[in-house]
Amino acid sequence: MVLRLSTLFLRTLREDPADAEVASHRLLVRAGYIRRAAPGIYSWLPLGLRVLAKVEAIIREEMAAIGAQEVHFPALLPKEPYEATNRWTEYGDGIFRLKDRKGADYLLAPTHEEMFTLLVKDLYNSYKDLPVSLYQIQNKYRDEARPRAGLLRGREFIMKDSYSFDVDDDGLETSYQLHRTAYLRIFERLGLDVIPVAATAGAMGGSKSEEFLHPTEIGEDTFVRSAGGYTANVEAVTTVVPAAIDYTGSPAAEVRDTPNTPTIDTLVERANADASREDRQWTAADTLKNVVLAAVLPTGGRELVVIGLPGDRTVDLKRIEANIAGHLDAGGEVAVEPANEDDIRKHPGLVKGYIGPGISLSAPVLGAEGSTGIRYLVDPRVVTGTSWITGANVAGAHVFGLVAGRDFGWDGVIEAVEVREGDEAPDGSGPLIAARGIEMGHIFQLGRKYAEALGLKVLDRNGKLATVTMGSYGVGVTRAIAALAESNRDEKGIIWPRNVAPADVHLIATGKGTEVFEAAEELVKQLENSALDVMYDDRPKVSPGVKFGDAELIGIPTIVVVGRGLADGVVEVKDRRTGEAQNVPVAEAAEFIRALVQG
Amino acid sequence: MVLRLSTLFLRTLREDPADAEVASHRLLVRAGYIRRAAPGIYSWLPLGLRVLAKVEAIIREEMAAIGAQEVHFPALLPKEPYEATNRWTEYGDGIFRLKDRKGADYLLAPTHEEMFTLLVKDLYNSYKDLPVSLYQIQNKYRDEARPRAGLLRGREFIMKDSYSFDVDDDGLETSYQLHRTAYLRIFERLGLDVIPVAATAGAMGGSKSEEFLHPTEIGEDTFVRSAGGYTANVEAVTTVVPAAIDYTGSPAAEVRDTPNTPTIDTLVERANADASREDRQWTAADTLKNVVLAAVLPTGGRELVVIGLPGDRTVDLKRIEANIAGHLDAGGEVAVEPANEDDIRKHPGLVKGYIGPGISLSAPVLGAEGSTGIRYLVDPRVVTGTSWITGANVAGAHVFGLVAGRDFGWDGVIEAVEVREGDEAPDGSGPLIAARGIEMGHIFQLGRKYAEALGLKVLDRNGKLATVTMGSYGVGVTRAIAALAESNRDEKGIIWPRNVAPADVHLIATGKGTEVFEAAEELVKQLENSALDVMYDDRPKVSPGVKFGDAELIGIPTIVVVGRGLADGVVEVKDRRTGEAQNVPVAEAAEFIRALVQG
Repeated sequence: MVLRLSTLFLRTLREDPADAEVASHRLLVRAGYIRRAAPGIYSWLPLGLRVLAKVEAIIREEMAAIGAQEVHFPALLPKEPYEATNRWTEYGDGIFRLKDRKGADYLLAPTHEEMFTLLVKDLYNSYKDLPVSLYQIQNKYRDEARPRAGLLRGREFIMKDSYSFDVDDDGLETSYQLHRTAYLRIFERLGLDVIPVAATAGAMGGSKSEEFLHPTEIGEDTFVRSAGGYTANVEAVTTVVPAAIDYTGSPAAEVRDTPNTPTIDTLVERANADASREDRQWTAADTLKNVVLAAVLPTGGRELVVIGLPGDRTVDLKRIEANIAGHLDAGGEVAVEPANEDDIRKHPGLVKGYIGPGISLSAPVLGAEGSTGIRYLVDPRVVTGTSWITGANVAGAHVFGLVAGRDFGWDGVIEAVEVREGDEAPDGSGPLIAARGIEMGHIFQLGRKYAEALGLKVLDRNGKLATVTMGSYGVGVTRAIAALAESNRDEKGIIWPRNVAPADVHLIATGKGTEVFEAAEELVKQLENSALDVMYDDRPKVSPGVKFGDAELIGIPTIVVVGRGLADGVVEVKDRRTGEAQNVPVAEAAEFIRALVQG
Repeated sequence: MVLRLSTLFLRTLREDPADAEVASHRLLVRAGYIRRAAPGIYSWLPLGLRVLAKVEAIIREEMAAIGAQEVHFPALLPKEPYEATNRWTEYGDGIFRLKDRKGADYLLAPTHEEMFTLLVKDLYNSYKDLPVSLYQIQNKYRDEARPRAGLLRGREFIMKDSYSFDVDDDGLETSYQLHRTAYLRIFERLGLDVIPVAATAGAMGGSKSEEFLHPTEIGEDTFVRSAGGYTANVEAVTTVVPAAIDYTGSPAAEVRDTPNTPTIDTLVERANADASREDRQWTAADTLKNVVLAAVLPTGGRELVVIGLPGDRTVDLKRIEANIAGHLDAGGEVAVEPANEDDIRKHPGLVKGYIGPGISLSAPVLGAEGSTGIRYLVDPRVVTGTSWITGANVAGAHVFGLVAGRDFGWDGVIEAVEVREGDEAPDGSGPLIAARGIEMGHIFQLGRKYAEALGLKVLDRNGKLATVTMGSYGVGVTRAIAALAESNRDEKGIIWPRNVAPADVHLIATGKGTEVFEAAEELVKQLENSALDVMYDDRPKVSPGVKFGDAELIGIPTIVVVGRGLADGVVEVKDRRTGEAQNVPVAEAAEFIRALVQG
C-alpha cells in the first residue's frame, strides 16, 4: 500500500496548537493525526486512523488468542439497566445524559457491565455455557470535569472493554489471569512500557483489581514500587500495621495546659518545654492529629468525618475517597473535602486546634457513640496500646498518654495518610519509591455485584440456580496512542514503534531531475511487492528541508532518501530513532529495507 | 478461520421476537445476529459483526478505488457548526440534543456536512489541493418519531458518508459521477438490487440528487419508473406541462348558482344537469379544486397556503413538503398539513366548499395580492388559457369558464398532486408505473450552501478566493444488512449472498461415532488451509434436526453434512438457496467446496 503525499489528506503544522498542554497532543495535531472538535473530543485524520487500526488489530488478535469473542453494543443506552445497578445515580455529573423526543432517559455509556450482563442472561442458562469472555472496541463517553492532555483524558474516546462470566470463583480467577496475560502481551506488542499495580475498584465494585500504568511524568496516577517487586497505585497501598501493645502498666492519661498550641509544631515545642521526657524528645509522631473532613455523598448529602492519624503524617484525600464508601454505607462514590467553617460551627463540641477523641472511654467525644456523634476513623498505625498526645477538646489543653483501646475507641480503620517514599511495602519487600503513570488498562474481579442486581443466574452442576461471577477488563485504545506518542518522540517529532506506525517506510524523493522520481517510483513498487506499506513523498515542488522535516515530525521508523546519492548508485536508509544513516546500493535497497522492516 | 458452534456466543431462537414487524428483523434476531437494546437501537452479536465487517470492507475497497480517503469524526458534536448552517434549528425534534456539565449544547450527529467542511477549511487553501473526497463509516443518530422494522429505521445506525470538494461545477459533476459508479459497484458486490432514482434534496439543500432504492414491498419510499427507463422518487417526479392555450375568443366567465355542491362530485353532477355541454359530459378534470393547507415553518410559525389543482387529482402532502420551502422562504424544512377549523375561521373570505381564486384579475381573492392575502400555488397543469369551473367564494355558487391568466393569476407553480400510474414520464419515455423501495443510498450535489455558511474558500487559478462546491454521499450500512436479509430468505431462514455471509461454509457433523467428528475435523482443517471461513457445528449432543434447522436459519450459502454418507465415503454438499444437494467423495470434498466458494 502506498500513501502519496501529493494527494494524501494531510497538512503538517509548523506551530503548536494553542490548547495543547502535553507533547503528544502537540505532535499528534502538528503531524496531522488528529484534530480537536470540542474539549476532549477529537476527529481522526487518515494517518491517525491507520495507527488506530493497527492498535485495534493487535488487541483483537490477543483477545482471540484467549478465546474472547467480539460483540458490539450501542453507545446510546436507556437508563433502566443502569438504574438497576444504581450506577445511573452513582455516576453523578460524570456521564452524558439526554432525553429522547418522548422524554425517556438515556445515557452515553461510559462502560457496559450492565449490557453485557443482560446479554449473557438473554442467551445463556447453564454452567455448560460458561466460561465465556466477550469484548467490544467502542466509543465511550465521560463528561470529564477537566478534559485535558489531548487523547489522554477525553470525553469521547475508544476503549476495548471485555467481560468474563464464570460459574465460580476459581473460574473467575482463571479468566482474570488470562486477561492479565493478554494485556501484558498487548502492551508489549504495542511497544508500550506498563507496570501492573494493585488498585482499588472504585465505582466499579468488586474485589481484586490491577491497573496497568505507563510510567510518565505527566501521568495523573501516583504509584509506588519496592526493590523487591511490590507495585501498587497509592490508593491501594496498605499500611504495615504494627502489633498491638500491651498497655498494662502504662501510666494514666493526664490533661495538661498547652496554651497557644493549635498546630502540631507548636504542640511538640510546648511538650518538649513543659513536659520533657527522659529517653528522647517528643516528635510529631507522638501526637494524634484529628482532621475534620466532609464526605459528599452520591445523594448530594454531606456528612462530617474525623480522621485520626499520627501528627507527622498528612491526609491523602484520594486514598480516603478510594476507601471510605464502605464505612458510610454510601452506596456509591463519595467525594471528600476539608470541612469548612460552616461545618465546624454546627458542632460546638469541636474545639479547633484542640480536637481529640475524648479523654476516657466512658465519655467519648468523637465517634458515632461520642458526644459529637461524628464518625471517627483512624489510620492503621493507631493500634491498641499506642499512647498519644492529643487534643482535650478544650482550648489550650491537650491530653498526654492517651492510650488507644484503653482511653478511646474508633468506628473504623481507614487507609488515610499520604504514602511516603521510604514507607515499608506491605509484603515486606523493602521500602517504597514513588512515580507517576497513566492508566492504560484496568482489570477487575467484579464478582457477583452486577449479576445479582440484574438476575444473571445459571443452572450449576447440581441443577441449582447459581449467580454468575464476573470480571471486567479495559484498555484505553485512543489513550494508548497518546501514551505511545508521549514516550516515543524527540524535539523533531514522533518516533513510532514499528508495530503501530502508519506505514513501514517513509520514502523521500529529492531533486529536480525526472530520474530521481523514476528511481523512487521503481523502489516504491518493489517495496509494495514485498507487502510493505510505503509513505511516498512524491511532491514535485517541495524543498528537501520541508520533506525531511515532515518525515521526522510524522515519525515512521525508517526513512529512505532517493536523491543526490543516486549519481553514485545509492539511496540513504535512515533510522528515525537513532538518526543513523547508511548508503545502500539501489539494486539492493528493496531487499535491505524489507529485511529491516520484517526483521 | 473456524467458528465452532460448541463455543460460539450464539443461541438461535425458535420463537419470533414480540416486537419484530418485518421478516428481516425476526430472522436477524432469531438467528443470533442482533439483539434489541432500546427502540431503534441494537446490539451486535458475533455473527452480526462478521456480516457488518464484510459489508464495511466492500465499501472501503470501492471508496479507495475512487480515491476517497477515510477519516473519522466524533458522534458527539458541539452545537456551533450546526448553528452556522441553521441545521441546529431545521432538524427540529429529529436529532438527539444534550448539554454537558457546563451547560454547553451538544448533539449526536445525524450527518456530518459541517464537520467535513470545517476540516477541509482547516487543512486546505488552494485549488491545487482539490478535488478531494473524504469519507467515514460511523455511528449516526436520529431521534425518529417511529423507529420501526429493526435495522431498517433505527435511531443509532451505521452509515458510510462521504463528501467531495471541488473548485468548480464540472469538478463536482465528476466527483458525483465517481460516487454514483462506486455506489452501483458496492450494491452489486453486496448482492443488493438497487434502482437509482431522481430525488429531491430535502433538508440537505443543494441541487441534483439521486436515491438508490432497493425495491421491496415493505419500503417506505414510493417511486415510479417508465418502460423507457425513467425512474424517480415520487417526490421528485415532474409533471409534463401542457402548452399554454390561446384564450382569444374564449367566452367570458359566468357565475352560476350551484346550490349544495360543496364537493367535486356534487359539482360535476350539478354542472351536467344545469349547464350541460354539447360535445361531452363535464368531468372532475374540468374543475379547479382549491385546497387550504397549513405550512408549519422551522420557526414554529404557521402559514396558510391554497393549492389549486384539477378536481380529478388529490394533493400529495409529501410532494408538497419536498417542494414548498422555496415558495415560502422558510429557510428549512416545512411540514404541511390540512388546515383546521381554526385556520379557516380566521379568514372569513374563505367559503368552505366554494373557494376560488376570484372571478376577475382585477379583484383577486386568493394570492398574496388577493383580498384574503393567502398565498396561492397551482399545479403545473393549470397553464395559461385553461378554462375551469371553480368556486365563486359565495356559498352555493361557482364560476364557469374561468380562464387561467385571463381571469386569475397565482403566486407560484408547485408539484402538488399525487403521481398516478399511467401519468406520462417527464422525459417522454412512456407511462409511469409505481413501486415501493427502501433508500439504501443517497447522493447529492450540495453545491456551495455549506461552504458559504462556514467560509470554505480556496485560491483559484487566478489567485482569487473561490467558494468550494461540495457533494454529499451516503450508504446505510446497517440498513443494507437488513435489506439483504429481507430480500434473501425463505420460510426456513436467511440465505446470505456469498460476499456478506458470516462464513463460507456451514459444516455439520451428525452421528454418534467418533469417526464422524474426526472426519469433520479433518475436512475443517483442509478448508481452513484453503483460506475458507468455516462455521463448524461440532456440538456433540445436539440432534441432526436441530443442527439442520440452525444452519438453514443462519443462512450460510453452502451447507456440508458429514454424517451417514461417510460409510459410503461421501459427504453431502447442499446449496442453501436452491436446496440442491450432491454427494461428494470425502477425498475430493475440500477441493470441490473450495471451487464452489471461490468460483
